[in-house]
Amino acid sequence: MELALDIKTSTGNKMPCHNQQLSSPTQEEHAVKQVRFVNSGSGGGTISSAEVKETQESGLVGAPCPWQLGPRVKLLPLNDQIRELQTIIRDKATSRGDFVFCADRLIRLVVEEGLNQLPFTECTVTTPTGHKYDGVKFEKGNCGVSIMRSGEAMEQGLRDCCRSIRIGKILIQSDEETQKAKVYYAKFPPDIYRRKVLLMYPILSTGNTVIEAVRVLIEHGLQPKHIILLSLFSTPHGAQSIVQEFPDITILTTEVHPVAPTHFGQKYFGTD
Amino acid sequence: MELALDIKTSTGNKMPCHNQQLSSPTQEEHAVKQVRFVNSGSGGGTISSAEVKETQESGLVGAPCPWQLGPRVKLLPLNDQIRELQTIIRDKATSRGDFVFCADRLIRLVVEEGLNQLPFTECTVTTPTGHKYDGVKFEKGNCGVSIMRSGEAMEQGLRDCCRSIRIGKILIQSDEETQKAKVYYAKFPPDIYRRKVLLMYPILSTGNTVIEAVRVLIEHGLQPKHIILLSLFSTPHGAQSIVQEFPDITILTTEVHPVAPTHFGQKYFGTD
Amino acid sequence: MELALDIKTSTGNKMPCHNQQLSSPTQEEHAVKQVRFVNSGSGGGTISSAEVKETQESGLVGAPCPWQLGPRVKLLPLNDQIRELQTIIRDKATSRGDFVFCADRLIRLVVEEGLNQLPFTECTVTTPTGHKYDGVKFEKGNCGVSIMRSGEAMEQGLRDCCRSIRIGKILIQSDEETQKAKVYYAKFPPDIYRRKVLLMYPILSTGNTVIEAVRVLIEHGLQPKHIILLSLFSTPHGAQSIVQEFPDITILTTEVHPVAPTHFGQKYFGTD
Amino acid sequence: MELALDIKTSTGNKMPCHNQQLSSPTQEEHAVKQVRFVNSGSGGGTISSAEVKETQESGLVGAPCPWQLGPRVKLLPLNDQIRELQTIIRDKATSRGDFVFCADRLIRLVVEEGLNQLPFTECTVTTPTGHKYDGVKFEKGNCGVSIMRSGEAMEQGLRDCCRSIRIGKILIQSDEETQKAKVYYAKFPPDIYRRKVLLMYPILSTGNTVIEAVRVLIEHGLQPKHIILLSLFSTPHGAQSIVQEFPDITILTTEVHPVAPTHFGQKYFGTD
Repeated sequence: MELALDIKTSTGNKMPCHNQQLSSPTQEEHAVKQVRFVNSGSGGGTISSAEVKETQESGLVGAPCPWQLGPRVKLLPLNDQIRELQTIIRDKATSRGDFVFCADRLIRLVVEEGLNQLPFTECTVTTPTGHKYDGVKFEKGNCGVSIMRSGEAMEQGLRDCCRSIRIGKILIQSDEETQKAKVYYAKFPPDIYRRKVLLMYPILSTGNTVIEAVRVLIEHGLQPKHIILLSLFSTPHGAQSIVQEFPDITILTTEVHPVAPTHFGQKYFGTD
Repeated sequence: MELALDIKTSTGNKMPCHNQQLSSPTQEEHAVKQVRFVNSGSGGGTISSAEVKETQESGLVGAPCPWQLGPRVKLLPLNDQIRELQTIIRDKATSRGDFVFCADRLIRLVVEEGLNQLPFTECTVTTPTGHKYDGVKFEKGNCGVSIMRSGEAMEQGLRDCCRSIRIGKILIQSDEETQKAKVYYAKFPPDIYRRKVLLMYPILSTGNTVIEAVRVLIEHGLQPKHIILLSLFSTPHGAQSIVQEFPDITILTTEVHPVAPTHFGQKYFGTD
Repeated sequence: MELALDIKTSTGNKMPCHNQQLSSPTQEEHAVKQVRFVNSGSGGGTISSAEVKETQESGLVGAPCPWQLGPRVKLLPLNDQIRELQTIIRDKATSRGDFVFCADRLIRLVVEEGLNQLPFTECTVTTPTGHKYDGVKFEKGNCGVSIMRSGEAMEQGLRDCCRSIRIGKILIQSDEETQKAKVYYAKFPPDIYRRKVLLMYPILSTGNTVIEAVRVLIEHGLQPKHIILLSLFSTPHGAQSIVQEFPDITILTTEVHPVAPTHFGQKYFGTD
Repeated sequence: MELALDIKTSTGNKMPCHNQQLSSPTQEEHAVKQVRFVNSGSGGGTISSAEVKETQESGLVGAPCPWQLGPRVKLLPLNDQIRELQTIIRDKATSRGDFVFCADRLIRLVVEEGLNQLPFTECTVTTPTGHKYDGVKFEKGNCGVSIMRSGEAMEQGLRDCCRSIRIGKILIQSDEETQKAKVYYAKFPPDIYRRKVLLMYPILSTGNTVIEAVRVLIEHGLQPKHIILLSLFSTPHGAQSIVQEFPDITILTTEVHPVAPTHFGQKYFGTD
């Protein structure tokens, strides 16, 4: 795995969790998808505990990524524009206008990658000049589901990439008396059990809300392997909790980091 | 370079020119940018001349990519969604509505990658919870220039990613009498010579129009190394001609293929 | 009021409720706003009871408008484009793609008119050529509140006209046991009591949901006169109920008609 | 016509040229369109010469509108939001971001009104609940043509209201030697002579560019009566010149005023 290390080094990225685990021929199912897998096992060993300690003390900078999240937690291929968007979203000095504009850009990129996780088939089309062209065609039968409130910020991005996709919604809140997560509202396409679902929730902090939402989807007949969770930021704990509970769902995010920008929904919508 | 071959195989992509040439530590300047470099030299040798002959005869499918375009011609990281967008754009059966929608999506992805080629600096910001976060900040002083007519299709995509960026324009046509490429119209930001320019032209066929446009920009004091050419499709010849003439400009595209979808502008705008 | 009749006749619009009740000098507060007031009293008398009977029997066509809704229920100035949008939204044969596109257009027009209801002040600006220009400037301190679920369809339209406006949200459902309308969720800008609120709900059928939502807003310290309800379609009963309960809120809609397109939310989002 | 005067007074608009000339039954062709006709003849008499003098001396404020532009020059129904957009566009202190955002809003409103000028037919549709609804359906066979450069700013607005409408383009410049207006570039839909054309040019100053563009369209077989000119601002002289040359084209604008914001294109695109 020296190559992986080279890439990490060459990116100049201080967050080692952003390694691109290269597709190997044995990972056939996901081999074509150009996402970074979060470091699993062996990779984590390349960071010395001294480094870990040092970076942990200095705040958010260069936080190591020794967590083992497995192959279904995927990071968007990192580049500098994405790093800038992450920076602007995290920066408390960012104006609401800029925040929304940059969040929308990052959301669109995550949505594009999420669509890319869906099943497709090879096909051949004919060009206007009469040539045959070997291409691909994604299967129909997808839908979006946003988890309120912050997940709603991702609805327009989904629509920008998938004209007239159906979008369901779930509201989960703590019960006032029992303090347990409770579903207050759920609207889905009628045949959701037959669809692939792009579940939208931008910030994975504890993972509890998502876990509850997935339960509701399963109650509606959906198989977890047909769920792709689209998020922007995740804590290691949040991703881990979800993976532990539902090892078959795919999680897509742009950064796994102990500090999650939990102000996201408030700042995006400008409400309490 | 076995790994590169593995990737190629695993993508199931019949166009070998889409190899991802992995960043090596010696390519420092561009190392952080996650783009694919078009096959240069060694990679081309992996395709037997028999294969080349076969695919060339059978139309567009699996056309080999033995061209040597150098490190400044960069391919967008290929994924299946991008392949689908390419397929829809090339398919003569696509409706105008779908064509425009998919072209706009592909354009936004190229624009995002184009922005990613611009210079940036490291910076540290403070999050709302008081943490320090090491991020990046792109430098100001960029602008867009579209080459008429088809380049104009990319203006909105640029605006979707760069709120209120300045956008100049060039019109180049063949002189009716001399048949030579001639500049009929050019409007730029007043201080263009100090800016980085995202030059927009979706289809690189012969490369002549772009070459003429670059000449005009140079006459306005711009250095070629400050030009990033954003395109969707290029012929090998088109990219090669531009590179030969101006080795310092960066060319970004999603596919290098002998058959260019030259109907792009006509279909996008619905005009002759 | 002969002139009003002339206008009605000349529009060729078979729905007499679309009369433009012309601003009279005594209605000073709203005089500047170019909206149509729904027929109140005298106008209704121009339709013979024979006509009423006939049209009522023949379905939606030409339904009369004898309701007295008062000056605070305002109709968007009707034109043929708006009639087309209304037609497409009502037509069961419309595809989801076209439905969403046309709904978004109609929503933007209602939002523009809603913004127009907000308070403004006169101001004088200087043009680039040094001339003074007497214009107007709307006051700050507005926000949007959408009532779930269909009201959410109007959020993007609001954002398209008001960059980075704050948008709150209310969820009201019938209590499973008591069957009474109950607030399940409410998020508002922290200082909502000081703001003008554009309350969004596209279809006013019974008016009950809106009435409940207004109650919640009042509980948060808002005065009803600071609420502008943006809707697309209303039944006479729906508008009347709201007006009766809260005579001070302003209701904006594009059509008052006994048959409301209650499939709106389902079709817009593609969910049950 | 006392009523017309009442409206004028009640709007609090100091520019008397914004009168709404009410549709009379004799103006059948245009009766259904809710646009303001620019004051023609009789209306102008309501302004005393004293008033005229006073306002002319005080700059742009309250400039009178004694010009006689005829029934085919139509003003968008004025409201305070439109006045605010006009104010922001004219104000030299407006940032480019705000300028573009507000220009886009005003453009969309003009486009909506322009679409409203197109021919339509009555139709009856069935609602999801089985009711018949008498609506309208606009005829197909329209296209847009933008006049470079500033007219291009209106293309996206047209697309926002007319998904996948065909958009042609004309470039007219002064010949370097003869100083005469000359067509440098023209691309139209192939069957433009059979279409209704929404001709886009935001600022009518002298009217010369538009006159030249209309000539080109006529050379392509178009009848002037099938042209609807969409603009944002016009001088009286500009509108008059066009009307004089081509009395059959329809001109739509939001303000007729001696001072035109000629900086529009420069500020919108950020170029010289």
